Amino acid sequence: MGKTTRKLEVVSPVPADIDIANSVEPLHISDIAQDLNLSSQHYDLYGKYKAKVLLSVLDEVGGSQDGYYVVVGGITPTPLGEGKSTTTVGLCQALGAFLDKKVVTCVRQPSQGPTFGIKGGAAGGGYSQVIPMDEFNLHLTGDIHAITAANNLLAAAIDTRIFHESTQSDKALFNRLCPPTKEGKRKFCDIMFRRLKKLGIDKTAPEDLTPEEVSKFARLDIDPASITWRRVMDVNDRFLRKITIGQGPEEKGMMRETAFDISVASEIMAVLALTTSLADMRERLGKMVVGNSKAGDPVTADDLGVGGALTVLMKDAINPTLMQTLEGTPVLVHAGPFANIAHGNSSIVADKIALKLVGPGGFVVTEAGFGSDIGTEKFMNIKCRYTTVRALKMHGGGPQVTAGKPLDSAYVTENLTLVEAGCVNLVRHISNTKSYGVNVVVAVNAFATDTEAELNAVKNAALAAGAFDAVICTHHAHGGKGAVDLGIAVQKACENAQQPLKFLYPLDIGIKDKIEAIAKSYGADGVEYSEEAEKQIEMYTKQGFLNLPICMAKTQYSFSHDAAKKGAPSGFILPIRDVRASIGAGFIYPLVGTMSTMPGLPTRPCFYEIDIDTSTGKVIGLS
Amino acid sequence: MGKTTRKLEVVSPVPADIDIANSVEPLHISDIAQDLNLSSQHYDLYGKYKAKVLLSVLDEVGGSQDGYYVVVGGITPTPLGEGKSTTTVGLCQALGAFLDKKVVTCVRQPSQGPTFGIKGGAAGGGYSQVIPMDEFNLHLTGDIHAITAANNLLAAAIDTRIFHESTQSDKALFNRLCPPTKEGKRKFCDIMFRRLKKLGIDKTAPEDLTPEEVSKFARLDIDPASITWRRVMDVNDRFLRKITIGQGPEEKGMMRETAFDISVASEIMAVLALTTSLADMRERLGKMVVGNSKAGDPVTADDLGVGGALTVLMKDAINPTLMQTLEGTPVLVHAGPFANIAHGNSSIVADKIALKLVGPGGFVVTEAGFGSDIGTEKFMNIKCRYTTVRALKMHGGGPQVTAGKPLDSAYVTENLTLVEAGCVNLVRHISNTKSYGVNVVVAVNAFATDTEAELNAVKNAALAAGAFDAVICTHHAHGGKGAVDLGIAVQKACENAQQPLKFLYPLDIGIKDKIEAIAKSYGADGVEYSEEAEKQIEMYTKQGFLNLPICMAKTQYSFSHDAAKKGAPSGFILPIRDVRASIGAGFIYPLVGTMSTMPGLPTRPCFYEIDIDTSTGKVIGLS
Repeated sequence: MGKTTRKLEVVSPVPADIDIANSVEPLHISDIAQDLNLSSQHYDLYGKYKAKVLLSVLDEVGGSQDGYYVVVGGITPTPLGEGKSTTTVGLCQALGAFLDKKVVTCVRQPSQGPTFGIKGGAAGGGYSQVIPMDEFNLHLTGDIHAITAANNLLAAAIDTRIFHESTQSDKALFNRLCPPTKEGKRKFCDIMFRRLKKLGIDKTAPEDLTPEEVSKFARLDIDPASITWRRVMDVNDRFLRKITIGQGPEEKGMMRETAFDISVASEIMAVLALTTSLADMRERLGKMVVGNSKAGDPVTADDLGVGGALTVLMKDAINPTLMQTLEGTPVLVHAGPFANIAHGNSSIVADKIALKLVGPGGFVVTEAGFGSDIGTEKFMNIKCRYTTVRALKMHGGGPQVTAGKPLDSAYVTENLTLVEAGCVNLVRHISNTKSYGVNVVVAVNAFATDTEAELNAVKNAALAAGAFDAVICTHHAHGGKGAVDLGIAVQKACENAQQPLKFLYPLDIGIKDKIEAIAKSYGADGVEYSEEAEKQIEMYTKQGFLNLPICMAKTQYSFSHDAAKKGAPSGFILPIRDVRASIGAGFIYPLVGTMSTMPGLPTRPCFYEIDIDTSTGKVIGLS
Repeated sequence: MGKTTRKLEVVSPVPADIDIANSVEPLHISDIAQDLNLSSQHYDLYGKYKAKVLLSVLDEVGGSQDGYYVVVGGITPTPLGEGKSTTTVGLCQALGAFLDKKVVTCVRQPSQGPTFGIKGGAAGGGYSQVIPMDEFNLHLTGDIHAITAANNLLAAAIDTRIFHESTQSDKALFNRLCPPTKEGKRKFCDIMFRRLKKLGIDKTAPEDLTPEEVSKFARLDIDPASITWRRVMDVNDRFLRKITIGQGPEEKGMMRETAFDISVASEIMAVLALTTSLADMRERLGKMVVGNSKAGDPVTADDLGVGGALTVLMKDAINPTLMQTLEGTPVLVHAGPFANIAHGNSSIVADKIALKLVGPGGFVVTEAGFGSDIGTEKFMNIKCRYTTVRALKMHGGGPQVTAGKPLDSAYVTENLTLVEAGCVNLVRHISNTKSYGVNVVVAVNAFATDTEAELNAVKNAALAAGAFDAVICTHHAHGGKGAVDLGIAVQKACENAQQPLKFLYPLDIGIKDKIEAIAKSYGADGVEYSEEAEKQIEMYTKQGFLNLPICMAKTQYSFSHDAAKKGAPSGFILPIRDVRASIGAGFIYPLVGTMSTMPGLPTRPCFYEIDIDTSTGKVIGLS
């Protein structure tokens, strides 16, 4: 595409990710922005290599036509991941630096916690990376920090409100909520009218409320046992998985058990990913439900008076961050919801901006974490699935892989039987994706230890399963050059795209009907609900949260609920342990088994290797 | 000074702070930078109105001469504060925009927690503010978020390490800490040599260690009861003041009581404020002591293998943030340690940079929170004390002021007796400050309700107490124009400065001797140590943490330990409840009574008013 792209000089064997990243001097991000026809009022610089693209750019380009929209998914992964981000980046480097296309890569911001734990960074790998990789993996432009701050302000507001309500009469509470101004007059502040409206009170002066209305307005009467809102932290801190708070003497015995999640699991992250504008985000943040009143009514952030403050904390986070690949193509990094308990996709606003910036004939390539049932929220044109031989072997019944340990020898020596057996997993991913009405291109991510026979076995299985094409790629070792064939295949698939997208279920059926449609796509014979799940479904139905899509919280290591069931399992009953709701983000999420929302640190975390060269200021040891 | 300054058109009565801040279009921060002779490689932009000034600028200007160094302190405050930041900003606006001097204001980054609680923002007030005030008060350039992340990574590392040590043999632990590489060889990573050196083991190959050395190296054997490191959060969350962690089933019963502090109370904040370079920060972060081994040896961040990772998280935070005042003079915002449990001053690196940038004849004006015993760490030339009539009345025995409530009528009607009695407080602040060998200029911050007789009473008392000068100021109402006389007085005081600075105590005396020297300056007759305090002093002495300065953790509402003792109390015995150490930051901090390190939220927090105008993107309701 642009003047900013460049080709890499690659060496073999492939050096460490941070060494490759540090070997390339990134372009000033304003050069990348200029190549996308962004002028300086369209973005804010954050240092030399990052810029926040302002949503206001949509006011100018909103009327122009969209480019092609490519979604990179994966097969059921091993715990090490199979290079989905690497493929996403490699494909874009091919399209931009070798096939002369306009292209923007839209990826998620990674959680900082795992960077210091087991997983390491998430900027791609080898010669297909987003750079500077340290800035990508750490802090970025502060969006996750903003989410942490907003999430925890809401959490503090909940407990403190319960505390203050417990020690004050209705009248005292009301008088403190609506204190007299200097002139001695009481008034409601703007946010209070949201609660008044919800309660059906259309009075505007505090003194006009009846004692019953005063009580209804001032007393949220939150049932502590119903609180679903947890505190968050962007650190792998397993000791916060279950805690008791409020044990200080000043809190007067108001203890309760709760937990911290990792920040990316916050509903506010899901809101950021799904919002479409600043005004929309304000409404979503205010509508978030944190628990119920003792009478069973949902209590929201706006009931607590804090929806506006949350929006203020998130006002810069709504702007996606522009970065670049190793070969100088543009990247928009934005939002990073957990793929297992949220929808695992980068933001809608970044994609919207990118689709306009590349225009007709251009490409926006984004990736979707496992469980990408968010697809129903998005407009997909083509979904490219990719795989690696390593994962396919696992689905064929190979030994279990544990992250951080060297690979079992079965994964580094040729084993065609394992690979062919594992292809049943790929086949189901292809057929499930095709059912949305999109073309599927399979990217076979070649590892150095894969043999040609193994790679061809995967390719043939993919074509037999109805993939539009299947292409062997070496972008990890060769950068964009290694994904040129993939780029060509993707372009053809885009040009032959069918319309419109088909959804798996309509929104206006019951919660259970929707859950069952998804379970069926997993290969399940049926669904089993716990008592708790039944109760919650009934409650959400009663509360009117009926027409929301479903976001299953399920292990990513199997189509089923059981991580040990590899390949394409069928004939099982999917157990629904509990059902929760992210009303602000806009989905109901059934919990399939137990999902950890706070990772831990191993005995020797990644942080042992991470340091700074104080003479150059460069980060070392980040992988 | 520069081309960027401008004069304000003021209106009366003074509008709300956010309305004044929003009424002025800030200059692009690169204009402010240019006026300081900073070229674009010296700073990184963070949006249009903030830039991080890179420490590398010192390599270029390090040889040039410093400007005058002015420290703004206060008298013992009311809970509402008396306008110290406002005076700091007003004085700089006067010097820069009216007296044609080169000037840089160096202030602390405020904690975000109180912004949503009771206190509101901290950008100054009226026509003396740092702008944009919403960016100043929220997120800024992410430094406090970086501190939160680093602090909590260390916290997670502590508990997880204890957990892993409890379930593994010495050998298993060692093998996991030094796993074999792909080639099957074990090696120490760089950070491990720090621990080896501390243990006196000078071997370089893991296999050469004796079983005893393996045990000493791999087993930190942290005594859970000795852990002083707490988690932090930049939110007023009182329910985290005392908590129990580790209650999840996977943590196998390893529960313990701990607490969250507000982020600015983290030792890492104190390190940021006191560090002098990137290499120095690396050493300080690694040296931070988190607790003791069961044998009584201090355990550090580097023992846990995490000092490098903490530095990486803090690598951008070390660069001060450039902003501007309402009248276009430059401001460096950097670090914000708590004034009560840490040293309450902005960073040394910001001051160092600023002193070089203004050069001879220029002014750097910084502020010091109450308890500014950090003075011993700094080179002070002149300390300007300021006061307000409101606070002086309190020290004369007026009714108690509670933040958030309208003032008692005694504070808004003339009461000369109260003011004159309150001046004893001012007098002691003047004489204590003069004892450092610096000239004291008293800025009498005029409130609209103060009478001329009251203001003159304060002025006369200050002069009688030996102040270099005492000046009535109206910068809140008039901007820099209202502080021109103050600016002239400060300039004269600078030109007549005496050298060198006198310290209150030398470093090479005992911990108790140092505590007693400070207590004497409070007016105490003696010091009383709890059993716990005696034990800790003995331990730190034994551990060799002897020659550190003392940072008293004491209420800011009285010279004594008792907030109710106003004026200039004497004849009391100062009780030391406990003694702690911030070894990385470099001080011992005795606790005088109980200091809260986690504020709470009132029934109606500030956040009720805070929202965003989604049509303009402007923040509203921030005060």
